[in-house]
Amino acid sequence: MKLLDGNSLKKEILDSLRLKISTYSAKPGLAVVLIGDNPASHAYIKMKRKACDLIGIRSFFYHFDLHVSQSKVLAFIEELNQNPEVHGILVQLPLPPGYDEQKIIQLIRPEKDVDGFHPINLGRVLAGMDALVPCTPAGVCALLKAYHIQTEGKHVVILGRSNIVGKPLAALLMQKSNPGNASVTVLHSKSHDLESLCQQADILIAAIGQPLFVKPSMVKPGATVIDVGINRVENSSGQVLVGDVDFDSVCQQCEAITPVPGGVGPLTIAMLMQNTVKAFESQMGFSSLSDA
Amino acid sequence: MKLLDGNSLKKEILDSLRLKISTYSAKPGLAVVLIGDNPASHAYIKMKRKACDLIGIRSFFYHFDLHVSQSKVLAFIEELNQNPEVHGILVQLPLPPGYDEQKIIQLIRPEKDVDGFHPINLGRVLAGMDALVPCTPAGVCALLKAYHIQTEGKHVVILGRSNIVGKPLAALLMQKSNPGNASVTVLHSKSHDLESLCQQADILIAAIGQPLFVKPSMVKPGATVIDVGINRVENSSGQVLVGDVDFDSVCQQCEAITPVPGGVGPLTIAMLMQNTVKAFESQMGFSSLSDA
Repeated sequence: MKLLDGNSLKKEILDSLRLKISTYSAKPGLAVVLIGDNPASHAYIKMKRKACDLIGIRSFFYHFDLHVSQSKVLAFIEELNQNPEVHGILVQLPLPPGYDEQKIIQLIRPEKDVDGFHPINLGRVLAGMDALVPCTPAGVCALLKAYHIQTEGKHVVILGRSNIVGKPLAALLMQKSNPGNASVTVLHSKSHDLESLCQQADILIAAIGQPLFVKPSMVKPGATVIDVGINRVENSSGQVLVGDVDFDSVCQQCEAITPVPGGVGPLTIAMLMQNTVKAFESQMGFSSLSDA
Repeated sequence: MKLLDGNSLKKEILDSLRLKISTYSAKPGLAVVLIGDNPASHAYIKMKRKACDLIGIRSFFYHFDLHVSQSKVLAFIEELNQNPEVHGILVQLPLPPGYDEQKIIQLIRPEKDVDGFHPINLGRVLAGMDALVPCTPAGVCALLKAYHIQTEGKHVVILGRSNIVGKPLAALLMQKSNPGNASVTVLHSKSHDLESLCQQADILIAAIGQPLFVKPSMVKPGATVIDVGINRVENSSGQVLVGDVDFDSVCQQCEAITPVPGGVGPLTIAMLMQNTVKAFESQMGFSSLSDA
């Protein structure tokens, strides 16, 4: 059984981005916007800004208190859209109740939408065009590619249909691309035939946010299992992080598997950095998002 | 075996649109742009304009000769974008060689993109938001709904991954909606396991443009079979239209099936009319595309 190590791949990707950025006289800039004081959001932002520091991206942190008006946030996003030093804009989700998440996301200029959440970026992904791809799906593809896991012709089963993981990942893996060219099945809470379809997967990807949901009976011997879940659960020794896959039992029968933590998670940040550099290069005219 | 009759459903939909339009003092307007003289394109446009006439949509036909410059076409699209009497813009595809199809499509204001080909409309479909949905996938959904064919929890297998049928249809059927909530599999020319996955489909949708590709061995007894293909083939009596499904042999073992012609085809035009009315209503402020 091969362990798919997201941390070492993240390091490789960040190293190569750092090298690339060092050759540019201008520096990419990432604006991170937070509303309120969710501790998990603070922790994520800290990790993202640390990655920026490490590779030479300037990060700008804008913190609004919980009661800022939506119109003020929108006006601020508009300023960031116009700011030539800001190449990527990230609004840390989830927003506190009372804000119109879609309205805020859709105001971000698609060229600066480094989270890849704007519908135009999702549409470009679905159409097989170049795009700022949502970071977690991009991370899964990066992992498959780095470990030379063939997807062409294979049956990929994705558990979960979220807008930030399941749906864009399905879109990516069915394209004429590498990774891609897979037979792709998307399953979710309403699926009648979940277990039997999972059993057929050459590559099983779990992204449903249900701790330890995937059991050995759902996995074909020799399959590759990618675990996107990050769930906080209580056990006798306090809070621990577990994935959507029952790793200890599933790992014995698969060809390759991601650990949690240390699998897909680190790559989400690496892909955010990659998107920011891509957005920078495109805005500086070094490259452009093409329609190929 | 139930025959899913697209012609009668088309008539119902057009009747109801006609009634609706008759209550409005202003009339929806659809601009149809053709470059060159492809006979099939002329035939399609004639059908579309006839449907417009029938229900009270004003159609404007703009015909450019084969050697018009792309910049002239783009400037003209921009005029149509600004024209308040034009609520929908349709550029008849395929374009002759030498034109940048994506550039032309992406210039159409998304609110007027009644073909639903703009990436932002595709992205809205993928994200489960209200959108101008590509007409053929919308027609398949209309047919499933009209005939009360349950999709929730069912396994839908889609043969084909085109940007105008397979991919948006997969996106529609995996949403939390009705039709929708299906387990969705997308297969294509690279799929290794095509036949065995087709055999598992509760609803099998063929959209690959391969005459008579789907044989009885690929269909589960009792399945619903939707044939999106329209292929011109030669036989002893001249040219005939056949679908992607070998209808005569497959129909004997399925619960319900679409004929070709007379199945999905007519609904594509009905959905174009529906999109044009929707675009009109949205632009007139009678309703708006929501992010629900």
